[in-house]
Amino acid sequence: MHTVTVATPGGKYPIHIASGRLNALAESIPSDATTIALVTNPVIQGLMGEQVTKILAATGKRIVPIVLPDGEAHKSWETLNLIFDAMLGAQLDRRTVIVALGGGVIGDMAGFAAAVYMRGVRFVQVPTTLLSQVDSSVGGKTAVNHPLGKNMIGAFYQPIAVEIDTDVLNTLPDREMSAGLAEVIKYGLILDAEFFAWCEKNVAGLRARDPVLLAEAIRRSCEYKAWVVSKDERETGLRAILNLGHTFGHAIEAGMGYGQWLHGEAVGCGLVMAADLSAEMFGFPAADVERVRALVAAIGCPTRGPRLGGVEEWMRLMRGDKKAEAGEISFIMMPQIGETIRRGAPAETVARVILRNTD
Amino acid sequence: MHTVTVATPGGKYPIHIASGRLNALAESIPSDATTIALVTNPVIQGLMGEQVTKILAATGKRIVPIVLPDGEAHKSWETLNLIFDAMLGAQLDRRTVIVALGGGVIGDMAGFAAAVYMRGVRFVQVPTTLLSQVDSSVGGKTAVNHPLGKNMIGAFYQPIAVEIDTDVLNTLPDREMSAGLAEVIKYGLILDAEFFAWCEKNVAGLRARDPVLLAEAIRRSCEYKAWVVSKDERETGLRAILNLGHTFGHAIEAGMGYGQWLHGEAVGCGLVMAADLSAEMFGFPAADVERVRALVAAIGCPTRGPRLGGVEEWMRLMRGDKKAEAGEISFIMMPQIGETIRRGAPAETVARVILRNTD
Repeated sequence: MHTVTVATPGGKYPIHIASGRLNALAESIPSDATTIALVTNPVIQGLMGEQVTKILAATGKRIVPIVLPDGEAHKSWETLNLIFDAMLGAQLDRRTVIVALGGGVIGDMAGFAAAVYMRGVRFVQVPTTLLSQVDSSVGGKTAVNHPLGKNMIGAFYQPIAVEIDTDVLNTLPDREMSAGLAEVIKYGLILDAEFFAWCEKNVAGLRARDPVLLAEAIRRSCEYKAWVVSKDERETGLRAILNLGHTFGHAIEAGMGYGQWLHGEAVGCGLVMAADLSAEMFGFPAADVERVRALVAAIGCPTRGPRLGGVEEWMRLMRGDKKAEAGEISFIMMPQIGETIRRGAPAETVARVILRNTD
Repeated sequence: MHTVTVATPGGKYPIHIASGRLNALAESIPSDATTIALVTNPVIQGLMGEQVTKILAATGKRIVPIVLPDGEAHKSWETLNLIFDAMLGAQLDRRTVIVALGGGVIGDMAGFAAAVYMRGVRFVQVPTTLLSQVDSSVGGKTAVNHPLGKNMIGAFYQPIAVEIDTDVLNTLPDREMSAGLAEVIKYGLILDAEFFAWCEKNVAGLRARDPVLLAEAIRRSCEYKAWVVSKDERETGLRAILNLGHTFGHAIEAGMGYGQWLHGEAVGCGLVMAADLSAEMFGFPAADVERVRALVAAIGCPTRGPRLGGVEEWMRLMRGDKKAEAGEISFIMMPQIGETIRRGAPAETVARVILRNTD
């Protein structure tokens, strides 16, 4: 088993990564917990709800199942309220532990519910997609969407433990594997050229779900993210580098309607666009733009974005992103693989990049 | 001017207390703020909205006014959403500062909005009632109500500054002055017999709004609360002593329907009941029960509660309180004035206290 420790001013917690880790889930429930609220979605409930309930039953604690509607479109204020209604209806107290069993949407909502239910209860994250294992389970960002923007209402709130079982990826659709790998290769691009090369070398094995390679990729991704988050829990500076590709990606997600493109697919395409913008702005080598494009294609993500309503709509969507402060659009860019810089970019340069990479 | 510094693991901030302090409000807005969201209610807007807007205009920053419906009945998820809709509609970014201008309801909602808008923006609290000046402005508890319980959804989130102007109390209705004084005398009961005696001596002057006496009572109340909160930001132990009288009080508020009794009135009556329970359980002197009863009456609060649906309903309402964990009802009680103990009490003893103090 790999253990990665995440340390932030808001708390310190372990990430356990192993094949079969689900079987040890009861260990993550503190003995003084009164109740377990098990939050999941219908798909995961069907795949492993019974198994997980049986494992948690070993704690002897009451388990309250809360099954939420599936998908990004339901990552809303209204769905969040379903959690509160269920928890208050079952009279769950402040020593309840919420277990978030699912992908990023479940993790974000259950985590936010934990942050604000009775002003905060403990939660354990059990991410069941590659994307959530390498990204949203580290760092304590929780949120729901608002009709006027993604992740607009939320909190920084750390779980008490993250439990990652690589076996659960065996039931994951190919498209979601590809989406998760986009975040994996992002860590190479922002922090470690050697890891980017490792991904290039092992891409076939990763897509074939080789458990040893996956555990290694997850461990390294969690370590990179944990390092960044430990330096900047509240996203005031360094943490912004994690948004490489995300400003473009959010425009795709919002422009197409949330749920059309998977978040990781949009990020994958965004990485290509960010590499291209980096070439325009900071002399990122043309050969490396092609390496990024080739690896994004190799993991199975789109390398070209939608034209949407044209450059104006792209700009408007990117400006609506909450990382844009007072109207200015800034981007994370790379002078070279493994290095980042955050800077505003002239509108005409951004427009060229959009036109060149969309149909 | 008095300055009280509040230090918690979640942050450190000053409380400024002075006659005319509103005029210095612009000082509390950080220079890097992009925008000010001024959250208030129609009554306060009418009394001082124009004045405060003019003062804040000196910062040169854009001011977005957000006027919420008045009263505890509107301290809801739905009203909270009005803040988000207004802020997102005006494209306010993460460097916005929320100014909460109003009593406890406005402070709790604007504070909670600040805690979760884009995962947290800064806020300044300008409490305009005595109750909020001595209680809710210190300690960072923010929340909204849920149909199944009061303050069920919220966060611990500290303001960057609290600005208290004793002059604003001149427009406060007598009933709200009385309600605020209930929390003032509570600090004497839980922490300082000398301060309780000071309140007994100065009750007439306080009710007559003598500015020197009020500033002194507010400063001492804030210091007591700040001391407690500095030891226990997240209410895991010591902070519970602040709930003296509140378990009874919440039952009154919930049983009568929120808004019928003012929170402070219910707490005032709850203090008498807690003193009576303390006499039953820990030999709190009968003469001191009478001193509590006399002072609660002298500040203008009710000393007897409503019978509601009888003892059973009282018990149910007190058990629904979130401080009750796993069904057990615990109370803050006093062995003597200025000392507290937290303990469960036998149902028949509590029933006697309820019957003796309600009509």
